[in-house]
Amino acid sequence: MAIALIVGVGDGLSASLARKLNGAGYKPVLAARDADKLDALARETGAATVSADASTRKGVDAIFGLVDRLGDKLAVAVYNPSFRVRGPFVEIDPDKVQTALQVTAYGAFLVAQQAARRMLPEGKGTILFTGASAGVKGYPQSASFAMGKFALRGLAQSMARELHPKGIHVGHVVIDGAIRNPGRTEPADKPDSMLDPDAIAETYMQLIGQDRSAWAWEIELRPWVENF
Amino acid sequence: MAIALIVGVGDGLSASLARKLNGAGYKPVLAARDADKLDALARETGAATVSADASTRKGVDAIFGLVDRLGDKLAVAVYNPSFRVRGPFVEIDPDKVQTALQVTAYGAFLVAQQAARRMLPEGKGTILFTGASAGVKGYPQSASFAMGKFALRGLAQSMARELHPKGIHVGHVVIDGAIRNPGRTEPADKPDSMLDPDAIAETYMQLIGQDRSAWAWEIELRPWVENF
Amino acid sequence: MAIALIVGVGDGLSASLARKLNGAGYKPVLAARDADKLDALARETGAATVSADASTRKGVDAIFGLVDRLGDKLAVAVYNPSFRVRGPFVEIDPDKVQTALQVTAYGAFLVAQQAARRMLPEGKGTILFTGASAGVKGYPQSASFAMGKFALRGLAQSMARELHPKGIHVGHVVIDGAIRNPGRTEPADKPDSMLDPDAIAETYMQLIGQDRSAWAWEIELRPWVENF
Amino acid sequence: MAIALIVGVGDGLSASLARKLNGAGYKPVLAARDADKLDALARETGAATVSADASTRKGVDAIFGLVDRLGDKLAVAVYNPSFRVRGPFVEIDPDKVQTALQVTAYGAFLVAQQAARRMLPEGKGTILFTGASAGVKGYPQSASFAMGKFALRGLAQSMARELHPKGIHVGHVVIDGAIRNPGRTEPADKPDSMLDPDAIAETYMQLIGQDRSAWAWEIELRPWVENF
Repeated sequence: MAIALIVGVGDGLSASLARKLNGAGYKPVLAARDADKLDALARETGAATVSADASTRKGVDAIFGLVDRLGDKLAVAVYNPSFRVRGPFVEIDPDKVQTALQVTAYGAFLVAQQAARRMLPEGKGTILFTGASAGVKGYPQSASFAMGKFALRGLAQSMARELHPKGIHVGHVVIDGAIRNPGRTEPADKPDSMLDPDAIAETYMQLIGQDRSAWAWEIELRPWVENF
Repeated sequence: MAIALIVGVGDGLSASLARKLNGAGYKPVLAARDADKLDALARETGAATVSADASTRKGVDAIFGLVDRLGDKLAVAVYNPSFRVRGPFVEIDPDKVQTALQVTAYGAFLVAQQAARRMLPEGKGTILFTGASAGVKGYPQSASFAMGKFALRGLAQSMARELHPKGIHVGHVVIDGAIRNPGRTEPADKPDSMLDPDAIAETYMQLIGQDRSAWAWEIELRPWVENF
Repeated sequence: MAIALIVGVGDGLSASLARKLNGAGYKPVLAARDADKLDALARETGAATVSADASTRKGVDAIFGLVDRLGDKLAVAVYNPSFRVRGPFVEIDPDKVQTALQVTAYGAFLVAQQAARRMLPEGKGTILFTGASAGVKGYPQSASFAMGKFALRGLAQSMARELHPKGIHVGHVVIDGAIRNPGRTEPADKPDSMLDPDAIAETYMQLIGQDRSAWAWEIELRPWVENF
Repeated sequence: MAIALIVGVGDGLSASLARKLNGAGYKPVLAARDADKLDALARETGAATVSADASTRKGVDAIFGLVDRLGDKLAVAVYNPSFRVRGPFVEIDPDKVQTALQVTAYGAFLVAQQAARRMLPEGKGTILFTGASAGVKGYPQSASFAMGKFALRGLAQSMARELHPKGIHVGHVVIDGAIRNPGRTEPADKPDSMLDPDAIAETYMQLIGQDRSAWAWEIELRPWVENF
């Protein structure tokens, strides 16, 4: 039973994805800063869980220690975490910029590198990054988020060019809009104006299932009513 | 039985797509300059066919005349045709540039406009364009192809911004590489180095099936070994 | 005295450019549909003028017939014309789409090809296109303009890749915003919110003067207060 | 005498720029890790110098401490430093990724924020970043460089959108190719195949001098014979 690793679990997207991966025959491994909150999802999806800060080498070692102990092949790795603050450029706390770069980009590198090391000998596997429109367009009042998400996209694109010919499929999914979750109320007159987690997860599954003769390295998703 | 129109049928992609659409419960309508060659495919997929030059208003009128006579709702429209010549910039025949603009871009406009008129009252439908890497990157010795495919992409992007909020999903699929067909021999040491028509068609079906809360307007497909 | 050809003269940009080119020692040749209106500018800048429809082969032949009769080397060619209509996608007159493609893109091809033929034997020269933000972003209600300006950008990019190594500098200037002219009133509280023709022309002159070790093929210009 | 700050001085570009800024009436302030090597250039250009690691808050405090002691207005700030390693993705030392993000992007943020704080009360000033083609295209075997330069571009674009309307001109110059310097031999049959530092610096001066009605936020420069 091949392993599908999801790093940064918590919101609806990761849970939807864990369920779909489980349904497709993968063994989910779920990593979060606090894995205790994942108990119910883990029971439902047969997932193994690990508490770890994926923006540190130690945390990533813990994640892949679990992957290796499980003993099965790693087929899929998904990286979700990001860090976002907003505010006037001149008022941004430099420490927040550091955190944005670490969480959004450096952690993605660490996880992707460990995943690639395990996939390359097999000559196959899929590594997906959850991006944002901030990674393709730098918005005002959002410099640190732009820096992290642009860096993530640069990582994904460089990896795609290098690893596709080695059989590893690298994908960058640009989420342009708010993701629907229980804490957010959607305007009554604008149905489906927030991205449904199941709909996003469906796209991830499609990327995982793509034939290698026709791979996408990037796909942008946004609600029908979203301006762009 | 909702209608799925494919304009520019002939290569493997359109045939794959016709089969998948038929399998998904659509009534295919196939348009080509010479529809006689489509007889076998039409029988297999229950398609109606029409001979028409889609780069002219008269030809497009013929296509939609058939659509209207069938009487069912138009749910999907796909535009494939393009015209390509290569050669040194100073030697390009201006008439070929005219043809490239007409076939690749103007015909796409004509078909898309007629399709949108039929879809808007329903508040739903999908219009897809087959693009090329030449539409995002202007290659040397290929000015006329670049002009046509860039124009097509501009059309698709403008339509997406305007029509998405009205419920019409517009998609531009960038094909980056050669499409596998019986006339082309794939290098033995590079399996899957040409795009499989079924794999491309699968992506078209996924776009058609996307939830409106998470639409993609563009997706690039290329073989795993393709440089980009 | 090397010739600098400007096609599509009339607004402030072309006049500014003619003056600067004249000041820099070029012989301006000005082409417009109605060259009579250029008399004052021609006297001021020592320009030769020609009435011609640059979206037709006949018109472009007339332009270059004048260039050739003057007998000097063609050093610079600038193409400005475009055709723009706005309106709901389903209501666009297809004839206007034809016109947009012809005026904005096909005419640019015709002029650029004739210019390149005269510059290539010299191994130098500059060909500039006046683009618009509509050429990099397809706006709603503006499909035909997007088609023309995207096609123009595809032409310019393809030419740049092919002709730069032959010594011909190709530039695409993206104008993002309204150009200041006597007929337009700038908001009193937003000074410099429209592009000054002299400022744009200055950028054209800078492109013309760039050292071939550091050429730009595209530059976007917008007022400081413009959203993008 | 307004101050023009250049951070990351050493190669030919910074020296060319210092000379041009001095010639245009600015007081150069030059920052480098080891400012001793700048003595000759400082004497020639009347520059003040400071040794500082611009990827740290302490280093940036030292730089702006000098700027403030000089007492004149800060009109221009240029950020050059970057850190580049190449190699297979799975072999990249994570510490090098950290360094790449710190030097290429975080330091740029620190310098730009301090510069913006001093320019905003004046409602004018220019902040320029030296980018690379790696910031717009992620190359294989170069993930860490891509991460740093993409992040830098995201920073610049976010700043441009936020600060242009406040009068601060932000520019990102994409250098696509090798910069000519005494240590590099240019192929005899390919003259001008490396970017001349004076030519690049000329573009920086043009950006600094642009009228605010027609600002460019980004410009790509490459030798005439460079593939792109």
